[in-house]
Amino acid sequence: MYTPSPFAFDDAEAIAHFVAEHPFAELISSGPSGTLVSHIPMGRVPSGGLCGHLAAENPQAKIADGTPVLAVFRGPHAYVSPNDFVSEFNLPTWNYASVHCHGTIRFITDAELAWERLGEFVEIQEGTTGWKIPDEPRFRALLSAIRIFEIDEARFQGKAKFSQNKSPEDIEAVIEALEARGEADASTLMKRISRSK
Amino acid sequence: MYTPSPFAFDDAEAIAHFVAEHPFAELISSGPSGTLVSHIPMGRVPSGGLCGHLAAENPQAKIADGTPVLAVFRGPHAYVSPNDFVSEFNLPTWNYASVHCHGTIRFITDAELAWERLGEFVEIQEGTTGWKIPDEPRFRALLSAIRIFEIDEARFQGKAKFSQNKSPEDIEAVIEALEARGEADASTLMKRISRSK
Repeated sequence: MYTPSPFAFDDAEAIAHFVAEHPFAELISSGPSGTLVSHIPMGRVPSGGLCGHLAAENPQAKIADGTPVLAVFRGPHAYVSPNDFVSEFNLPTWNYASVHCHGTIRFITDAELAWERLGEFVEIQEGTTGWKIPDEPRFRALLSAIRIFEIDEARFQGKAKFSQNKSPEDIEAVIEALEARGEADASTLMKRISRSK
Repeated sequence: MYTPSPFAFDDAEAIAHFVAEHPFAELISSGPSGTLVSHIPMGRVPSGGLCGHLAAENPQAKIADGTPVLAVFRGPHAYVSPNDFVSEFNLPTWNYASVHCHGTIRFITDAELAWERLGEFVEIQEGTTGWKIPDEPRFRALLSAIRIFEIDEARFQGKAKFSQNKSPEDIEAVIEALEARGEADASTLMKRISRSK
């Protein structure tokens, strides 16, 4: 991801927070048949790895262990018009945040381990008090319809492009414009970034 | 994109509408240095093609004309808990919609044509009454900092996975649950899909 320095973040805690807040990712891989992209939730399981799963029927579930993959997490984003700035020499732009994770895929083939990971994975969204997968044969049988994987050698890169290269007056004006257009997620993140400088 | 038939859409008008509503895309390409992904707005310009631009400094702006690319457009999405259904044998899932466009990239190198495309591209977001790029040397000079491209041989594929494989009772229950959690965009799209059947 092309990331000019004002927009880069690589702090491990900030990356982990971003992934936890925006778990719905794209898993991207390339092979002889072209680029494959699946839209799936991913997240760090308590046992440590970045984990996800694919439908067994998905062609991407058939790529080999060790294949390079890229997981893309997306945060809030919003169009910014030149009319949003107080200064007068600007182009339209898009403000956004994203985390990319490059690594290699490893599918979990051991049935007990896969069942354990699935339980951990469910807990990422449901928390400790929400729905738990019942340990019943009909649920265990569903494991054959999915393939659970982890990403090894994970290298994370974060980008948050929210007008940090503009003047404080322009930044405040853009925040106000985003709020006025109901872009609450983008304006909230932009405020957090501009006030943490 | 792996798309079981209940979730597929390929109607040209529906695809065009989706792209216009969700212009902030990912441009994906693969090469010797690995997978490149840029987060950029893309859209169909009045002259016909699917168009976007990259910072000239972005390594992806240096790929060759004719390189296969994939543009991914993302719509609303939301987590669905097994607790959201009225039936009792479900797994957690994620509802979402996306349009993928496979094609090849062609950069516009003619300065006059690039200027014209940039004007058309700005109008996608600003409309006919919004900000227009002034025809001034200082704005024309900005063209050297970007590379405008179109996607040729565009092949579109749409997926909208919003519990269409569930019973009407489950679908209504999920819509209510999404509304209750403030997932307005996802519940609105899910209503539109479930009532158009």
